[in-house]
Amino acid sequence: MRVGVFDSGIGGLTVVKSLLEHQLFEEIIYFGDTARVPYGVKDKNTIIRYSLEAVEFFKNFDIDIMVAACNSVSAYAIEEMREVAPFKVFGVIEPGALALQNAIKNKNAQILILGTKATINSQKYTRLLNSYGYENLLSLAPSLFIPIVEEGLFEGEILQSAMDHYLKHIQQPDALILGCTHFPLIAGPLQKRFPDAKLIHSGEAIVQYLQNYFSFTKKFSETKLKFFASENPDGLKEVAKKWLKL
Amino acid sequence: MRVGVFDSGIGGLTVVKSLLEHQLFEEIIYFGDTARVPYGVKDKNTIIRYSLEAVEFFKNFDIDIMVAACNSVSAYAIEEMREVAPFKVFGVIEPGALALQNAIKNKNAQILILGTKATINSQKYTRLLNSYGYENLLSLAPSLFIPIVEEGLFEGEILQSAMDHYLKHIQQPDALILGCTHFPLIAGPLQKRFPDAKLIHSGEAIVQYLQNYFSFTKKFSETKLKFFASENPDGLKEVAKKWLKL
Repeated sequence: MRVGVFDSGIGGLTVVKSLLEHQLFEEIIYFGDTARVPYGVKDKNTIIRYSLEAVEFFKNFDIDIMVAACNSVSAYAIEEMREVAPFKVFGVIEPGALALQNAIKNKNAQILILGTKATINSQKYTRLLNSYGYENLLSLAPSLFIPIVEEGLFEGEILQSAMDHYLKHIQQPDALILGCTHFPLIAGPLQKRFPDAKLIHSGEAIVQYLQNYFSFTKKFSETKLKFFASENPDGLKEVAKKWLKL
Repeated sequence: MRVGVFDSGIGGLTVVKSLLEHQLFEEIIYFGDTARVPYGVKDKNTIIRYSLEAVEFFKNFDIDIMVAACNSVSAYAIEEMREVAPFKVFGVIEPGALALQNAIKNKNAQILILGTKATINSQKYTRLLNSYGYENLLSLAPSLFIPIVEEGLFEGEILQSAMDHYLKHIQQPDALILGCTHFPLIAGPLQKRFPDAKLIHSGEAIVQYLQNYFSFTKKFSETKLKFFASENPDGLKEVAKKWLKL
């Protein structure tokens, strides 16, 4: 099976990492819209427009399914993408919410949802989790985490100041949804701040979801990888090499 | 005279502020490419492509000149814009370098240039200032300053941590070029860090440049203002109201 992974930039490589580790696919084709990154500060119509262009891009390839690794795309554009795509389209929000349901049985648990402004404003996580019976939800858009991660500052004083700024009045949650592809890269400091919280990672969640959906029986010890970007594809390939240890 | 001001986002409003204060224009039409902001992390070809689209946009208006408020656009796209524009196109880099030349007579002065990655990589300031005889130049791209300003954190711990991160090993300069439209908004903390430095502001520099170029004799106590954005124009108008005290 061949999968096209779409992200606003390089962040979706954290999802590719999970797909690779679980050896689910024969081929992974990645497209990062690096010329227009970030999506998380853009509005719904713009995100839909750009996401439909990504569907067009993947029509040039013989893929079986498309995964929107980007939470902002998953929040706003999945329905529209499904209408025009000749392949199945999966987002990461429903998988994330289901992963939380699997991990946290207590419906009174405190759930903290971190995401981009677009993802948080969409209220997609909140509505899904409410429909599963969870009521103690807190949503937050710590916007600066994203450029801090992009600057490669996965630890240190700036990240600590930013965590203080956004999280200082936040009670210890029972679970923390890493609702942006960048946040797994600072999972360590976040876990340290919230030591008892179960962390929900989009990459792991979509793997679990696809495994349930397709009941894969075959594993691929070698996966063909192709990387595309709307600008500076070499930069993307370099980050891929580092993060995915290629 | 009517001017079209182009910026990657809202930052160029700091330039509009200077144009307004000096009452040079009958009408200012602003276009912020908010759907694709920021430009400063994008590569040369992308910046040129987007800037040429902005020229097309302004062809719909009866403007006399166009000002690229964005330093990244000024660094990479001015020549290309001039080739296709039916009006005069001005960037902010040459004006900034000339403003520095007016302010700093000592050619051995220490000059610190702060800008986006695109602006710094282009070396446009460096080459111009070298050609004027300045040799002690240091260029730096403190990338996080931009999202910090966009988050409205014009002071406080995150900004201080970021200033420590980028500037801690930097000697006190004699002049500091604020080579990004966002930086005038943190001019206070930067001046506090470098108390003896003369700060060069793109908005003031372009005003000075245009005054020399056109020898304006008329002042406009009322300026017609129009704001356009490639997404969320209402958001842009709100920021304009606040920053420009409309």
